[in-house]
Amino acid sequence: MEYGKIGTYRLVAEPFHVDFSGSLFLGVLGNHLLNCAGFHAKERGFGMASLNESNYTWVLSRLVVEMERMPKEFEEFTVDTWIENVYRLFTDRNFAVCDASGTPIGYARSIWAMINMDTRKPADLLLMNDGHIMDYIESEKPCPIEKFSRIKLSNPECVRTYPVVYSDIDVNGHVNSVKYVEHVLDLFPLDTYRTQYIRRFEVAYIAEGHVGDTLLFYKESCGDGVYDIEIRRAPEADGKEETLCRFRIYFSNK
Amino acid sequence: MEYGKIGTYRLVAEPFHVDFSGSLFLGVLGNHLLNCAGFHAKERGFGMASLNESNYTWVLSRLVVEMERMPKEFEEFTVDTWIENVYRLFTDRNFAVCDASGTPIGYARSIWAMINMDTRKPADLLLMNDGHIMDYIESEKPCPIEKFSRIKLSNPECVRTYPVVYSDIDVNGHVNSVKYVEHVLDLFPLDTYRTQYIRRFEVAYIAEGHVGDTLLFYKESCGDGVYDIEIRRAPEADGKEETLCRFRIYFSNK
Repeated sequence: MEYGKIGTYRLVAEPFHVDFSGSLFLGVLGNHLLNCAGFHAKERGFGMASLNESNYTWVLSRLVVEMERMPKEFEEFTVDTWIENVYRLFTDRNFAVCDASGTPIGYARSIWAMINMDTRKPADLLLMNDGHIMDYIESEKPCPIEKFSRIKLSNPECVRTYPVVYSDIDVNGHVNSVKYVEHVLDLFPLDTYRTQYIRRFEVAYIAEGHVGDTLLFYKESCGDGVYDIEIRRAPEADGKEETLCRFRIYFSNK
Repeated sequence: MEYGKIGTYRLVAEPFHVDFSGSLFLGVLGNHLLNCAGFHAKERGFGMASLNESNYTWVLSRLVVEMERMPKEFEEFTVDTWIENVYRLFTDRNFAVCDASGTPIGYARSIWAMINMDTRKPADLLLMNDGHIMDYIESEKPCPIEKFSRIKLSNPECVRTYPVVYSDIDVNGHVNSVKYVEHVLDLFPLDTYRTQYIRRFEVAYIAEGHVGDTLLFYKESCGDGVYDIEIRRAPEADGKEETLCRFRIYFSNK
């Protein structure tokens, strides 16, 4: 194998990618993680480009990020990523974010499906490309953070109505998964981020937002600095609201 | 001199940094240009970090970008940047954006001032650091785009009221100059970008937006696909609206 099981990518926290406190924006970190996932897959022959040729694409289903601290402005850091498990319809991809000395400052877990771009139906990962992806399963490297929660809002309040705009839309015509993160963090006043930081962040992507959609942001406090947020598509006529994604955010005191 | 007059930086158009048509977002390009300006200055000893130590900082005053085409998803490109001129209170910094073969696909011009961070007063660039910056003036390299226009709106309409949020604010506590660009482009419906592209984009930064500000977006069509936009800070009590920046955008048919 030309490439090992773990991919390692060097990054730096750019000036326009840090918040008022000099910490990398979580949305930007999410962007980096997804890029690293893309690099890792591409280098090993199961990336978007090779899949697209055969009319398949990766779809992100779950992402959870847990950080002891965020990289600071101009800080160099690395992202390790590897495949923990491959199932018939899903694969688990993990990440470690390390400082320049190689000490982990956070971890992430993600779950991906592969779908046929015409039918939007999931593909069997064990059959795809002769199960080539399984050559890269790395089950030894630790990812010491909890798996995903089941997020279910009981009595949420609609706190924002937001029509999708040009900069929200990605090359697939969907709302960019990183933009949802940005919009969700923007539901909290800046003062929240003066005294608290996001220790853990979970997102479940359920359906895709499109050009022309109006997004409804529902929010619910679960106590102890934990918030559940659901983004729904506003109905067009007398239709129903449709859930696009759900978030759970764990704030801790700085 | 360890570094030449022209700095050249290699970049790639990342998947989450391209729009629905697969073209790099102009805001992201702006971010890259400003980063490259920072790299160039830092390498040559007049970057933010060394200035901040002596309590000075660079402030972007004008930016104009003119593109034949935008880099496409996954495309590698380079940014050249150099100092064209240094005056007492301003310096002209130019950029060339080139494709992987080195052919220019666009240019940019910018004007910067240096200010004292306490007094917010401009510094004399010819005296600063023994006028070291003047060793790097490169007046031969062409930047074949028009200089800045004087943007003056005569009868604009307020088309958006926008309260500043967490992700708008940079490490200095100001609205991120790249975010203004993003918000301005979002004033145009996505359909505009299906048939047209931004051939030229100008911005004059006049005052700084802050946390807690509400931004008012004034827009005026100048005909022939040219639009002027002014962003103002909404007055707090009976105060006056204050102009933060002005944009001129030139659309052309694709």
